[in-house]
Amino acid sequence: MGEPDTNHVIRDASGGDWPEIWSFMRGIVRAGDTYTWRTDVTEHEAQSRWFLPPPWRVFVAVGSDGGVAGTAKVGPNQDGPGAHVANASFMVNPDHAGSGTGRALGRHVLRFARDEGYRAMQFNAVVETNSRAVALWRSFGFDILTTIPEAFRHPTAGYVGLHVMYRRL
Amino acid sequence: MGEPDTNHVIRDASGGDWPEIWSFMRGIVRAGDTYTWRTDVTEHEAQSRWFLPPPWRVFVAVGSDGGVAGTAKVGPNQDGPGAHVANASFMVNPDHAGSGTGRALGRHVLRFARDEGYRAMQFNAVVETNSRAVALWRSFGFDILTTIPEAFRHPTAGYVGLHVMYRRL
Repeated sequence: MGEPDTNHVIRDASGGDWPEIWSFMRGIVRAGDTYTWRTDVTEHEAQSRWFLPPPWRVFVAVGSDGGVAGTAKVGPNQDGPGAHVANASFMVNPDHAGSGTGRALGRHVLRFARDEGYRAMQFNAVVETNSRAVALWRSFGFDILTTIPEAFRHPTAGYVGLHVMYRRL
Repeated sequence: MGEPDTNHVIRDASGGDWPEIWSFMRGIVRAGDTYTWRTDVTEHEAQSRWFLPPPWRVFVAVGSDGGVAGTAKVGPNQDGPGAHVANASFMVNPDHAGSGTGRALGRHVLRFARDEGYRAMQFNAVVETNSRAVALWRSFGFDILTTIPEAFRHPTAGYVGLHVMYRRL
């Protein structure tokens, strides 16, 4: 989490970012290998699922070319007496893979969640074959609390586990 | 799961059951010691959260007095490639506590989920101090896969853990 990121500007997402977000989110969801969304989700449903109402916040990472390199949303993992643990989701534009977009968004979201007063962050469903995501979150200090066995039907690997990942803030 | 239950009839819930469900759900949610719902949830929000659209199903257990002794909902814990693992929630009318309502609903929901083709059932947030619920699900063969530390702010016990419980179907 140390070094600054000079390749991205992270800012709140606006409705005007949606077409560009959807241009890469669509392929990520259709592939069906990293997200527990219906692979045939409509654009409208996807927008509703990503742009959640407050207290959720949605961010975009803008790359050096001015395009949307990735997006993240962060909010409470549960409501009421469970609302002090944050949840977050991330999607990186494959055209920007390898440029540190996921790391820049992760760093931003962790800082934001801490500043908002969340005490911890929890991911409920990290696909165990998504080794890039697992490695990224481990590097940020997340632990795998458990792996739900065979909870994800991967298009080529069959039934694989979903990690519950967690770190204090 | 063996013995038949002669004290309850379990059937699909209908909109007409709502006032009776809310009459005890209200107190359960307001108490804030077992559910990760906002304790000030409105009746309308509660109804929307309980009567989820298909593929979710909502059941009521009708006691020998003809009243609603408890209710349960069951549906996919995740969508898309995660939709083969079921989730379920249960609320028992405190006036019927100790009459086996939770057990009757649990038995019914597990059978229903198996018949629907779900491969497993997962609870994401069983409050660790809710010893009655933990004991009930253990007796049904659920394991505690992990306990999210301090993920629930209990009104008297402070920050306590949330169990992730799981069993194959």
